[in-house]
Amino acid sequence: MSTNHHMTPDEFRKFGKQVVDWIADYYEWVESRPVLPNLAPGDIRKSLPEDPPEIGESFEHILGDVDTLIEPGLTHWQSPKFMAYFPSNTSFPSILGEMLAAGMGQQGMVWKTSPVATELETHVMDWLVSLMGLPEHFKGNGVIQDTASSATLCALLAARERVTGGAANRAGVPSNLVAYTSDQAHSSIQKAARIAGIGDERMRLIPSDDHFRMDTEALAAAIRADLEGGLTPFFICAAVGTTSSMAVDNVQAITDVVRREAADIWVHVDAAMAGTAAVCPEYRWIHDGVEAADSYCFNPHKWMFTNFDCNAFWVRDRKQLIDALSILPEYLRTAEHLSGAAIDYRDWQIPLGRRFRALKLWFVLRHYGAAGLWHHIAEHVRLAESFEHNVVAHDDFELVVPRTLNLVCFAHRRGDAFTEALMAAVNATGQLYLSHTRLGDRYTIRCSIGGRDQEQRHVDVAWNLIVQKAKQLEESEGESRG
Amino acid sequence: MSTNHHMTPDEFRKFGKQVVDWIADYYEWVESRPVLPNLAPGDIRKSLPEDPPEIGESFEHILGDVDTLIEPGLTHWQSPKFMAYFPSNTSFPSILGEMLAAGMGQQGMVWKTSPVATELETHVMDWLVSLMGLPEHFKGNGVIQDTASSATLCALLAARERVTGGAANRAGVPSNLVAYTSDQAHSSIQKAARIAGIGDERMRLIPSDDHFRMDTEALAAAIRADLEGGLTPFFICAAVGTTSSMAVDNVQAITDVVRREAADIWVHVDAAMAGTAAVCPEYRWIHDGVEAADSYCFNPHKWMFTNFDCNAFWVRDRKQLIDALSILPEYLRTAEHLSGAAIDYRDWQIPLGRRFRALKLWFVLRHYGAAGLWHHIAEHVRLAESFEHNVVAHDDFELVVPRTLNLVCFAHRRGDAFTEALMAAVNATGQLYLSHTRLGDRYTIRCSIGGRDQEQRHVDVAWNLIVQKAKQLEESEGESRG
Repeated sequence: MSTNHHMTPDEFRKFGKQVVDWIADYYEWVESRPVLPNLAPGDIRKSLPEDPPEIGESFEHILGDVDTLIEPGLTHWQSPKFMAYFPSNTSFPSILGEMLAAGMGQQGMVWKTSPVATELETHVMDWLVSLMGLPEHFKGNGVIQDTASSATLCALLAARERVTGGAANRAGVPSNLVAYTSDQAHSSIQKAARIAGIGDERMRLIPSDDHFRMDTEALAAAIRADLEGGLTPFFICAAVGTTSSMAVDNVQAITDVVRREAADIWVHVDAAMAGTAAVCPEYRWIHDGVEAADSYCFNPHKWMFTNFDCNAFWVRDRKQLIDALSILPEYLRTAEHLSGAAIDYRDWQIPLGRRFRALKLWFVLRHYGAAGLWHHIAEHVRLAESFEHNVVAHDDFELVVPRTLNLVCFAHRRGDAFTEALMAAVNATGQLYLSHTRLGDRYTIRCSIGGRDQEQRHVDVAWNLIVQKAKQLEESEGESRG
Repeated sequence: MSTNHHMTPDEFRKFGKQVVDWIADYYEWVESRPVLPNLAPGDIRKSLPEDPPEIGESFEHILGDVDTLIEPGLTHWQSPKFMAYFPSNTSFPSILGEMLAAGMGQQGMVWKTSPVATELETHVMDWLVSLMGLPEHFKGNGVIQDTASSATLCALLAARERVTGGAANRAGVPSNLVAYTSDQAHSSIQKAARIAGIGDERMRLIPSDDHFRMDTEALAAAIRADLEGGLTPFFICAAVGTTSSMAVDNVQAITDVVRREAADIWVHVDAAMAGTAAVCPEYRWIHDGVEAADSYCFNPHKWMFTNFDCNAFWVRDRKQLIDALSILPEYLRTAEHLSGAAIDYRDWQIPLGRRFRALKLWFVLRHYGAAGLWHHIAEHVRLAESFEHNVVAHDDFELVVPRTLNLVCFAHRRGDAFTEALMAAVNATGQLYLSHTRLGDRYTIRCSIGGRDQEQRHVDVAWNLIVQKAKQLEESEGESRG
């Protein structure tokens, strides 16, 4: 093969079909393998040649290396044995959307550079509003971001510019701005406040109640104290489904506080994990109060069968977002922009360039339909409920907090050290992957359901493994004491 | 079909292979179609159903709609007739990498959640250092970002925290920090300064010389004036290949200024577009002085046959980047992190989650090899040179600035209004897509070469079309005057 060779369309047909088969095979065998690779940091790099090749290699050889060098280093997020962190579920329709988007090679920074990437995005974002019963005024005001971290940062920047009348963009961030979230909220909120020049000292972590929801009376008190201290409260991030325990902040009460204090505070609702549940009418209560919020986001790339990355972000008033994020150099001026007729999504986000992410979401929404998504999400919640029943029914275990939706937080009654050792023992089997958190300073195991292929049998096997490992640990502790 | 139906692996095999053929076909026919769709804003949405489907649809139907609803709305970035903006070239090896990454469904936020996504990333970033003759001290200090906008923001945040000893993250941004870039630098730099709480007033846009490179004497004077005024210069962004005209700032002279003024100024080098040229030893001069910079980035997703998004970003000292961007909540603690043995890339970027982008880059570097990349990049530069010769040889046209690498900036001698009308007439044919800028306040057409499939014949056809349209415009102007 010449080194000057571009792969031809016919070669792509051949290798592309091999890759399609590789992917299909992967989903057929992934359940049979350990969910976590047995590797130490550095092991993979040791197997790779130190220098890039001088002369191009055959693609047969490269694809062969996927099996020998890449596959052994995967953590199997798509295995039904993966119950750690959160679901990052995929689906075949979504993978097909990613494939096509990669092939089309669009760059939708402005309407003109990809009209369909732009308009399909606005359209599927409107579809999600209908599908999830979100406020109608979100329609036309939605954009896909990479992650909830970025959406939160955009919301915080829009809030910063709104409250300062654009002065922060012009002259820097005044030192009187104060932001609020709960002590359970995601680390990305504090990170956004750092990035945007607010800083930890003016990011109030409001205490949470015994269900780990933001204490809204404490919030009101903090806002009043800051106002009295001459500071300017400007941003609250409410969590609908905290990372640690899936606690759902009372958005209605939070927006009531803002109204009562008559302050110009932007309320952003981060429903990254839990938002998908609103596809099911019986769980729409999680969004009570969102109609009074200024912005909202959730991640189809967590629980809605859509490949990472895909965060869905809406604002009440897109002008406020655009005013905060728009810069228009000469080389990006287009007639469609200047006329105001088109959306240029570059003004709705941190980066300039953007992929055609709406395509995979369109595929997913059409493949499943509202009824299909409802079915699967409700089933995941039912599976989590069955796991919760097992915990409650067992004398040695207890819930650390009642289950919300698809996450069960539990511990062994022997205490933190035992619970931690138990999780390590379970994960070491390769038959299950769980992760942990601390709730009220208690070491807590999280069992998170929501993988595409998770069924009752996986939840049953997981529970039996946990019980078996706990028994073994008890016995070995007994022996070492005896 | 049941609405509860997940697509099966066998269905995916079938539809996946259809999608592979769709992509291969696309690259076979794209050249024959108008490069820009003939649409007005809103046209695409009118063709889409207002509400999402209640019941899932057949994938045959959905794929059929790709032809009827999606394809007509594409701007053909991958057509050899696309010479606007910058190349956003793809290649089949890269598309195969995107496909596999989508199928694997990795989420590499920390080492443990995808050891191979993490280690392959560090590895291919080291490969790029070798391939492009970048400073050896970049090895181990590279990370893939989505875009140069995000890389620049990360660099600016690292600089902000270095100069304030972490105080900005803790207490907000002091009002004495000053950043510098040239008046030709990309809008994302000013945007980053806004986001990070510096603001336009302390973002100095240093004048450029007659070749649109930063005037380093003016830079030195601005820094001295700011120091004398009690301000704290902390960040310079040098452009290696400006967006407007591919001007290459003198990085050596800029870092010399910093050394001379003995200020703690972070020098970031943004080579988003041009960096790829360093694959060819004859163009490595563009990076002279980078060894004294604090950070550097370029976009494999522009000119290195790697699908958007893929920005390659290095820092001299990763600790400074991590110190600025790390937050470690309990639920993300892993033994591998706490031991310091593993890289957790979530601490090197704005978002938390991350895709397995190293895979497509690995495929590209192995498929082409150093020699293959060299061949294609050098050929693109030669094509641009041949276009430049045509401009210079024609009495009615002139270069606005001498060509650098693959970009030709030219104008018609009849002036701005004529040049603008000419570009509009050329683009209206659908046979070529060019974009514009202003250089020294002069309306300038940009002809950007670098698409995967661009050959001499495309450049010749483009030039002939431009000359023909200019002649028609002259005649019609003559008639309307006559």
